[in-house]
Amino acid sequence: MRFKFPLMALSLQVAMIILFGLFIHYETDQNLQQRLNTTTSTHKDRFFELYPLFQDVHVMIFVGFGFLMTFLKKYGFSSVGINLLIAALGLQWGTITQGILHSKGQQIHIGITNMINADFSTATVLISFGAVLGKTSPVQMLIMTILEIAVFAGNEYLVVEIFQASDTGASMVIHAFGAYFGLAAAGVLYRSGLRRGHDNEESVYHSDLFAMIGTLFLWMFWPSFNSAIAEPGNKQYRAIVNTYLSLAACVLTSYACSSLVEHRGKLDMVHIQNATLAGGVAVGTCADMEIHPYGSMLIGSIAGIISVFGYKFLTPLFATKLRIHDTCGVHNLHGLPGVVGGLAGIVTIAMKSSDMSQVAMQAAALGSSIGTAVVGGLITGLILRLPIWGQPPDEDCYDDAVYWEVPRRREHDDHFHEHSDYNQLEPDV
Amino acid sequence: MRFKFPLMALSLQVAMIILFGLFIHYETDQNLQQRLNTTTSTHKDRFFELYPLFQDVHVMIFVGFGFLMTFLKKYGFSSVGINLLIAALGLQWGTITQGILHSKGQQIHIGITNMINADFSTATVLISFGAVLGKTSPVQMLIMTILEIAVFAGNEYLVVEIFQASDTGASMVIHAFGAYFGLAAAGVLYRSGLRRGHDNEESVYHSDLFAMIGTLFLWMFWPSFNSAIAEPGNKQYRAIVNTYLSLAACVLTSYACSSLVEHRGKLDMVHIQNATLAGGVAVGTCADMEIHPYGSMLIGSIAGIISVFGYKFLTPLFATKLRIHDTCGVHNLHGLPGVVGGLAGIVTIAMKSSDMSQVAMQAAALGSSIGTAVVGGLITGLILRLPIWGQPPDEDCYDDAVYWEVPRRREHDDHFHEHSDYNQLEPDV
Amino acid sequence: MRFKFPLMALSLQVAMIILFGLFIHYETDQNLQQRLNTTTSTHKDRFFELYPLFQDVHVMIFVGFGFLMTFLKKYGFSSVGINLLIAALGLQWGTITQGILHSKGQQIHIGITNMINADFSTATVLISFGAVLGKTSPVQMLIMTILEIAVFAGNEYLVVEIFQASDTGASMVIHAFGAYFGLAAAGVLYRSGLRRGHDNEESVYHSDLFAMIGTLFLWMFWPSFNSAIAEPGNKQYRAIVNTYLSLAACVLTSYACSSLVEHRGKLDMVHIQNATLAGGVAVGTCADMEIHPYGSMLIGSIAGIISVFGYKFLTPLFATKLRIHDTCGVHNLHGLPGVVGGLAGIVTIAMKSSDMSQVAMQAAALGSSIGTAVVGGLITGLILRLPIWGQPPDEDCYDDAVYWEVPRRREHDDHFHEHSDYNQLEPDV
Repeated sequence: MRFKFPLMALSLQVAMIILFGLFIHYETDQNLQQRLNTTTSTHKDRFFELYPLFQDVHVMIFVGFGFLMTFLKKYGFSSVGINLLIAALGLQWGTITQGILHSKGQQIHIGITNMINADFSTATVLISFGAVLGKTSPVQMLIMTILEIAVFAGNEYLVVEIFQASDTGASMVIHAFGAYFGLAAAGVLYRSGLRRGHDNEESVYHSDLFAMIGTLFLWMFWPSFNSAIAEPGNKQYRAIVNTYLSLAACVLTSYACSSLVEHRGKLDMVHIQNATLAGGVAVGTCADMEIHPYGSMLIGSIAGIISVFGYKFLTPLFATKLRIHDTCGVHNLHGLPGVVGGLAGIVTIAMKSSDMSQVAMQAAALGSSIGTAVVGGLITGLILRLPIWGQPPDEDCYDDAVYWEVPRRREHDDHFHEHSDYNQLEPDV
Repeated sequence: MRFKFPLMALSLQVAMIILFGLFIHYETDQNLQQRLNTTTSTHKDRFFELYPLFQDVHVMIFVGFGFLMTFLKKYGFSSVGINLLIAALGLQWGTITQGILHSKGQQIHIGITNMINADFSTATVLISFGAVLGKTSPVQMLIMTILEIAVFAGNEYLVVEIFQASDTGASMVIHAFGAYFGLAAAGVLYRSGLRRGHDNEESVYHSDLFAMIGTLFLWMFWPSFNSAIAEPGNKQYRAIVNTYLSLAACVLTSYACSSLVEHRGKLDMVHIQNATLAGGVAVGTCADMEIHPYGSMLIGSIAGIISVFGYKFLTPLFATKLRIHDTCGVHNLHGLPGVVGGLAGIVTIAMKSSDMSQVAMQAAALGSSIGTAVVGGLITGLILRLPIWGQPPDEDCYDDAVYWEVPRRREHDDHFHEHSDYNQLEPDV
Repeated sequence: MRFKFPLMALSLQVAMIILFGLFIHYETDQNLQQRLNTTTSTHKDRFFELYPLFQDVHVMIFVGFGFLMTFLKKYGFSSVGINLLIAALGLQWGTITQGILHSKGQQIHIGITNMINADFSTATVLISFGAVLGKTSPVQMLIMTILEIAVFAGNEYLVVEIFQASDTGASMVIHAFGAYFGLAAAGVLYRSGLRRGHDNEESVYHSDLFAMIGTLFLWMFWPSFNSAIAEPGNKQYRAIVNTYLSLAACVLTSYACSSLVEHRGKLDMVHIQNATLAGGVAVGTCADMEIHPYGSMLIGSIAGIISVFGYKFLTPLFATKLRIHDTCGVHNLHGLPGVVGGLAGIVTIAMKSSDMSQVAMQAAALGSSIGTAVVGGLITGLILRLPIWGQPPDEDCYDDAVYWEVPRRREHDDHFHEHSDYNQLEPDV
């Protein structure tokens, strides 16, 4: 950490400034009219129409993802702090990679859609961050940000421009992609020393409440996420309504299943924090389609059920059998529901249209999202495995104290808790 | 809890999907033009105009109400978690009940106003939840959600369509209604075993800070709540300005009175968390009327004073004399200020107009809101009293551990605190 | 505290109601058309166009500033609570002072711009609050609110109407002003009894997480702050894009420098909570100018560096050499970056224009902002030093318990921690 991290962060920022100097320009009325073949100036109107939706997405990225990961008792600084670092780098790099790929050789003019897409591209890294949370260094996360967003931009270009597939809410290109990228990397970075778990890999009461701040802001603003880049008008309207209803339905099935699978019917905070959001992921691909209100509720209900069962049964299985340890269970929140979303898109289009080529393209989009994610994740994992990035030793995993100045008091807490463990053996003390 | 809760939650979600399949459709430009007797398509414009206000209301419902109730030291999971459950169910059920009542036999098309009204209908249950917080099971709250929203929709229909009364910010139909419904239910569910209080019914330092997250988001976004369904233009503008000013004035009088009534002039977090919001409640009914900026500040100032005095003197009285135990003091935040709001509306209309029938209708609206709430709350309380809903025993009230898997550490905390209580007796340890 | 505080708060609120009764009116379409010399009614449109930006600013003021200061382990109630009190009084008083100064003798009509400006005027006091945090009483803060906003309104009038200087994001009139006002007051209020620090002047693990809620909401919504009163169209668009990019760049340099200056390359929460925001301050003055995307990133990068070095080296120096103790380090977050912002504005205008008078006016604006702040802060400090405002004794600084009812548990925590300190001496216990 001593010099590697500051040097890498500063160099990356210098590189970003140079790249922005070379490629990124303000949007002006002229270049917009030119591009849209219109003489009426709608650019600024559209900017301010979408700005509230952009801010909702922004809150999801920085507060939503950041606080969702604060559930670990000793890893809150890193969760919310490295989340901010990744996202701040990622949105600059995402603006450039996506800008260049979609610019068709023309100048890149930064508008509200670029800003929304930049936030989206950081989301993939933040999802993958969840899979390796507590087991990587800030330097490794900077590298992952650069590599993953480059692969994401490539796949997104393929899906949107070549396959011309529909994925408005990005179930495939963001959620499934981010999850499988992270899982592949987590597999390569597997630590057999931690196969029996780690004392720090648990929550305390208040860390679970901090995580609920993340959950709620993600839950509330997900309709904005799924509709932000939808076509204006009816499609954008439907993207909001469908996502809103899918999420509401998902809450009830998550709670029901959480109680069903847990000891004595109790609710589990892990499920409540995560599975309640699966409905937003799963309805993503067909968010703007005419799936009817009840259709979106059906998708959300199924997503909640799958997600809870994933947390209960798949995550332990992955850790023991596949040697993939998924700290936040991103497979259950983003992976499986993302695949469900992709499949729901295929079914919806197959039911509406007799043109099988469009169905094939949707399938290709799902396949390419998972495929590029796995390959990209494996390669990234191999690079991150090089023993030069300051990764934490096994015993220091899930502990902020490796990379952060932690208030003195924390150590006291630990003393106290050991102390009270001791007391527990002597019930009369 | 073992099977009752999951089965009830799943059945309710299945029922919602069926009801949405039967009754709820997308809004299209055609049906909107037809309804509004216009040929210009303003539907989508209005949707996106109101969407930011809807999101503000959404934040109030899920983060505002949810975190406001996290002040109890051991009841944060339930406060924020059951709040989410109630609201997710309530917004589906509210869409249906309000939709059917207002549809006049036509199809129900879900638009932004339906979504805002659905959030509103959940607010009534969340207010009542505050009165019975810590003393009910999740199953009981599901039942209360279904019953209370049905009664609410009936009263709202009466007030708006029959009495044609004005209640833009819903001081009467939401706040007074929710409070008196909850108080009536709390009265029926009174536990004489807890008349001397309960060890868990208190806050810790950080739980009070979590609660302030709720307070602030409610406080900031209340202008959106009071204006979201106001008539566009001047009325909506006034609803925002009046609420903004009423709340600002309310803060100063709440702080002043809190210091005045407390031991040695100290401030009390209960007052700061709650009474500062009474201005938003009390200005609700006349939020869109021409009450002048100073008029709204006067209403807010009075509401803050009444609310603090209610917390200090009325709540203990209710518990001992009326055998109504009001955990969050919703009577002081929603009940009294709601009645003040209703009265302010009557006075305002009486001063502007010589038509006494309109004044009578406002009075009828206030009476019917309180009346239906009390009757509905009593009946609901009786149903909830049936000993089959898994209600917590007295000693487990205000404790998440009954319905939630609570992190192991919490038990340590308790050990520690008993331990340090012990220490306190021996000052030199 | 016994009677001074409630009497002062109530009297101020009564005064505000009277002043609003005399001076503040609703905006109507007629008076707006009259003022803008137009017959098309654009007033209400503009109101709702800007309302989402206003709400973003509102969140920054109440949640952003409020929670940013909760980092102290025993001062969270005061941070978030007195922040609310100051802001609620300040926005009323700011509406009046700014309204009267800009009204040119005409009636004051409260519109969205007045509401945004009112929030802005409270920001200056909240910044100064950071410098004296933990060392003042609520009564002192009420007095500071009244005095500082009056001086602020005077300087703002000078800068905008007389110098006609450009300061869209208010680097000079809010940030530099608020910081130097606070520093001057803190200098006068210096407590030599605390020159060796205070046990309470430190964070605990969860108080640092609460502070990150403040940081993130400030960070995300800063583009709205810098653009809320910008000229509609291209300028407002640029204010958003420039601020967004400046902040992203600032994050990377802050993290890099924090790691660089800290012991063994660790990150310091103080830097992450504060220096990451310096980019928003520094880009303020030229937010709406054509500084190119890379230009704003350059400004943000420099601000992050300066801010971290300020926290590391200047703040201790100020405390020991200048006898100015700056609790939150507002000099590093608002003071220095505000000056950088003012200078960046001068440079930008000098590069674009050959008209040196405009450059001189920008310099005059910077000078007057700092000058009036220092003079105003000194005088305010002298008034606050009168020993009649219930200021806390040295030993009770940074402790909520002086002015708040604090949950019983807190005392236990202290017991426990003393206890565990003791344990630390005996490692085998």
